[in-house]
Amino acid sequence: MSKITLAQGSGGVESNRLINEVFFKRLKNDILLRAEDAAVFKIEGKTAFTTDSFIVSPIFFAGGDIGKIAVCGSCNDLAMMGAKPKYLSLSLIIEEGFDVGDLERIADSIAAELAVNGAMVVTGDTKIAPRGSVDKIFINTSAVGEVMLEGISCKNLKAGDKIIVSRSVGEHGAAIFSAREGIELVSALKSDCASMWPTVEKLLGAKAQIISMRDATRGGVAAVLNEWCASSAVSMDIVEESFTVLPEVAGVCELLGFEPLSLANEGTFVMAVREGEDEILNILKSYDFTKNAAIVGEVIDDGKNRAVLRNGYGTRRILEYPTGELLPRIC
Amino acid sequence: MSKITLAQGSGGVESNRLINEVFFKRLKNDILLRAEDAAVFKIEGKTAFTTDSFIVSPIFFAGGDIGKIAVCGSCNDLAMMGAKPKYLSLSLIIEEGFDVGDLERIADSIAAELAVNGAMVVTGDTKIAPRGSVDKIFINTSAVGEVMLEGISCKNLKAGDKIIVSRSVGEHGAAIFSAREGIELVSALKSDCASMWPTVEKLLGAKAQIISMRDATRGGVAAVLNEWCASSAVSMDIVEESFTVLPEVAGVCELLGFEPLSLANEGTFVMAVREGEDEILNILKSYDFTKNAAIVGEVIDDGKNRAVLRNGYGTRRILEYPTGELLPRIC
Repeated sequence: MSKITLAQGSGGVESNRLINEVFFKRLKNDILLRAEDAAVFKIEGKTAFTTDSFIVSPIFFAGGDIGKIAVCGSCNDLAMMGAKPKYLSLSLIIEEGFDVGDLERIADSIAAELAVNGAMVVTGDTKIAPRGSVDKIFINTSAVGEVMLEGISCKNLKAGDKIIVSRSVGEHGAAIFSAREGIELVSALKSDCASMWPTVEKLLGAKAQIISMRDATRGGVAAVLNEWCASSAVSMDIVEESFTVLPEVAGVCELLGFEPLSLANEGTFVMAVREGEDEILNILKSYDFTKNAAIVGEVIDDGKNRAVLRNGYGTRRILEYPTGELLPRIC
Repeated sequence: MSKITLAQGSGGVESNRLINEVFFKRLKNDILLRAEDAAVFKIEGKTAFTTDSFIVSPIFFAGGDIGKIAVCGSCNDLAMMGAKPKYLSLSLIIEEGFDVGDLERIADSIAAELAVNGAMVVTGDTKIAPRGSVDKIFINTSAVGEVMLEGISCKNLKAGDKIIVSRSVGEHGAAIFSAREGIELVSALKSDCASMWPTVEKLLGAKAQIISMRDATRGGVAAVLNEWCASSAVSMDIVEESFTVLPEVAGVCELLGFEPLSLANEGTFVMAVREGEDEILNILKSYDFTKNAAIVGEVIDDGKNRAVLRNGYGTRRILEYPTGELLPRIC
C-alpha cells in the first residue's frame, strides 16, 4: 500500500484497512473506538461548535502542513469563543494516487496537534476522488468544545476598549506565498500556524474583562477589525507602528504590493479588552511565541464605524476591509 | 454575481456577500446569526456527533442533489445512533467559475432537508478553489444531535435477533450510475436519498428492543451485515428473496455484474431487533417510503462470523464483504 486507490473509498475491505492502518493507529481513543455511525459523549456546560475545510497548497510548508493547520484551525475557532477544544471530526477527500507516506505524515501532524489541545478525533470520514477531481488532499475538521468563558462577542465592543494583537502579523500568508513561488531569499520565514488554546486558557484565568477574541486568518487583522467595527457599530484608532512585521514578511509585501495587515495568519489573534489589558499583555509577553504582543489601538465612538490607521508622522488612513483575492488556497 | 470567483473565498468583502446572499438568507436562525468563530448552544442529554464529506457526481441526480444528500447523510448517521439531529455545520469547497444559480438550488435543497429533520445549520465555512483543483463542489456536513435512545451498538447482536431492512435496496447506486452514464432506459429510477429521523423517531416509540441500526450507504447492505458479524462475533442466516429489488435496479446490476446488496443506498437502513420485530415492521410498512420493509433473516451462532445468503432453491452462499471499487463518487 504505497499509493491511494479508488477501492480505498468504497466502504469495503480496502477502506477499512486504510482507516485502520493510517488513522486508527495514530488517533485511537475510547470514544473513537466505540464510535459507530456517530460518536457519543457528554458536554456538561455550554457547547461550542465550529467547522473549517482546508485546501491549502502546498500541503507541506515551512511551519506546518495541511494536517496541523486542520487541527489548529478548528480548535482555534473554539478557543476564540472561550471554549476548550474537546472532540473533533476528521473528514478527508484524497486524490487517487496520493502517496500513503505523505498521508501518514499528515496523520502524525494531526495526532501531535490534537495533543497540544488536549483534544481527540472521535468521528471521521474518508472519500477517495478519481485523479484530477481533487488536487491532492482536502481536509475538513469540525470541533466541539466546552465553553469556559461565556459572553465573548464581537457585538459588544465600546469606546475605550483596548485592541491587542497577540504577536507579529502576516507570517502564514507570506510563508505560503513563498513556498508556492519557490522564493529562496525569504527562507527563514515560516507560518505562525499554531494552536492557541493553551495561551487562551492562561488568559481566561486573568482578572481582565475580555470582550472579544478572533484569530486573524483569511483577510488578516484588517478583516477582523473591520468586522468588529461593523458588528459593534464602533470605530477604532489604530497605531500602525505598534504592529510587529518581520522583515521577511515586509519583503514579500513590498514585492507584491500586499498590506501586512491583510495577510493571513494561523496562530495570531486579536482581542478587545475592557479592563486589565496590562495583565493580558504580560501573560502574552511571557511566552516566546507571543512575545511581540502589543496594544495596537483602542475603540472610539465617532459614528463612522471604521478603523483608522495612524502612523508616526501623524498621517491617517482608513484600514480597508480586504477586497479581491490575495492568495487562493491559503488555508 | 452569476459565476463564483476566487475573491469570494478571500475572507473579505466578496466572501461576506456570497455567504449572506446565498446561504444566510436561506439558513438563518438565532444561533447562526449569533455565531462568531463558533456557534454556542446547550445539549441536555448525551451528545452524538458525526461527519461526512460529499463528492457525489453528478451533483444533481434523480431523487436528490449534493445539498440534499449532504444533510441526509449526516442526519441519518445521528438517527442510526438513536439521536435527534439538531445542529449542523456546513462547509463548502467550490470550484472557481461554478454557477451561482446552481449554488442557490443546492442551498434550497439544504434548507428543505434541514426542515425535514427539524435541524439547523449553525456554523459554516466556504472555500473557493481555483479552476481544476476541485470538480465543481464538495460539501462537508458535521452534525450534533441529542441521544434519545442509549445503548444502540453493532457490538451487541446475539443469536435470535431479527434483521430488518427498511425498504427496497440499491436505488441510490443504480441511479447515480445511470445518471453518470446517461442510461435512458432506466429513467424511472431515482435515488432513495431521504432523511430517516422522522421514521426512526416513530420506531423509538415502539416497545421493541432495538439493538443496532445502520444506514446502508457505501458498500450497501452487504457491508453493514459483514461489519455487524465481525463486531458482534455472530453469523447471520439471510433469505435472499426477502429483499425487494426494483426491476430497474436489477437491470443495472445485470448489465454491470453488480450485486444489489452491495449497491449504495442513501435512505435505506438495516436494524437488528431482539423483541417486537412485528411492531417495528408494521410501523415501517405504514409509510409509503418504507412499505417494502422486511425481516430478511436472523442472527445465528455458528462460530463462523459470517452472513450466509439462502435462496428459494436451498442454495447457500456467503455474502461477501464488498471489495474493489464499484462506483467512485457515489456520495
